Amino acid sequence: MKKSMGAKTIIYPTPVLIVGSYDERERPNIMSAAWGGICCSKPPCVTVSLREARQSYENIMKTRAYTINIPSASQVKEADYVGIYSGRDEDKFAATNLTPVKSDLVNAPYVEEFPLVLECKVIEILKLGIHTQFVGEILDLKVDESVIDDNGKIDMRKIDPFIFSPSDSGYYRIGDFIAQAFSVGKKG
Amino acid sequence: MKKSMGAKTIIYPTPVLIVGSYDERERPNIMSAAWGGICCSKPPCVTVSLREARQSYENIMKTRAYTINIPSASQVKEADYVGIYSGRDEDKFAATNLTPVKSDLVNAPYVEEFPLVLECKVIEILKLGIHTQFVGEILDLKVDESVIDDNGKIDMRKIDPFIFSPSDSGYYRIGDFIAQAFSVGKKG
Repeated sequence: MKKSMGAKTIIYPTPVLIVGSYDERERPNIMSAAWGGICCSKPPCVTVSLREARQSYENIMKTRAYTINIPSASQVKEADYVGIYSGRDEDKFAATNLTPVKSDLVNAPYVEEFPLVLECKVIEILKLGIHTQFVGEILDLKVDESVIDDNGKIDMRKIDPFIFSPSDSGYYRIGDFIAQAFSVGKKG
Repeated sequence: MKKSMGAKTIIYPTPVLIVGSYDERERPNIMSAAWGGICCSKPPCVTVSLREARQSYENIMKTRAYTINIPSASQVKEADYVGIYSGRDEDKFAATNLTPVKSDLVNAPYVEEFPLVLECKVIEILKLGIHTQFVGEILDLKVDESVIDDNGKIDMRKIDPFIFSPSDSGYYRIGDFIAQAFSVGKKG
């Protein structure tokens, strides 16, 4: 028997996306966002939704570019920090001792210390309500060499990413492997 | 030092969204999708991206409604099954012994056995490339009474959801609690 809880934004998991952008003077900013995800395989695209009040919103409206950075569990404090404070008030890279690196392909900075980065060019902007969704075409995926396995593949365990749970505002690690997709459900 | 991996659709985590829809004769269908997530807090909205070839795409284009169902780890086999096979060829509810329930608020079925359900009305359709993104306004969140704690809140641990990892196509449980969001990063 199901119980109605009203119109709430709860799914599991949601990601912890660290969004990098420049202002008009090329000052780097980062913030965290949980409203977003991959949205198309070809062209490869990712979305992130931001409120208008955010410095990152203003930046991306101007530059039409951003990076999505995935932090490790060991970097949870920095990831949370950049979601609490505003780039209008301080340089969040300096405050967290993180290093901005100018992307090769888009006019946005990525975080040197975070293990996985997507460089994105804005191709659609969709005003939905208090959030505006930015669809970015992924021009490149960059990862730390330390998270690539012997077969040249990205090893999620070496990244050690974490999730955000909207119902309790908790951050959680990725847990045990359960099964292989496109396999465990096959007819016997 | 970062290594360029080309334009790839990899972030961690991505969700396992089970999408429920009706065809024009109100025959229920479900499929799994990893490209989607919450996209706006007010109005509460969620996205899911589907390929045109999918029965679900055709259904949602007609009904302008869908449900998002979050399965438990114990239901991984059913969740994977509905991502492999097509509703054009069979009744996937029957094949998986899952029960379709007509939503109260939208013209779409949800899965009785899955612990968390969002009932969604399509408010935007964005053709991006091989995927089309459906933005759904969340009209209600329904959960099994068994996953509500003594304070009336949803307990993620009782849902026991799982994630999809795009780099190895693995399903993984949610792991250990790391920290409280909007708290661990606060200035001391």
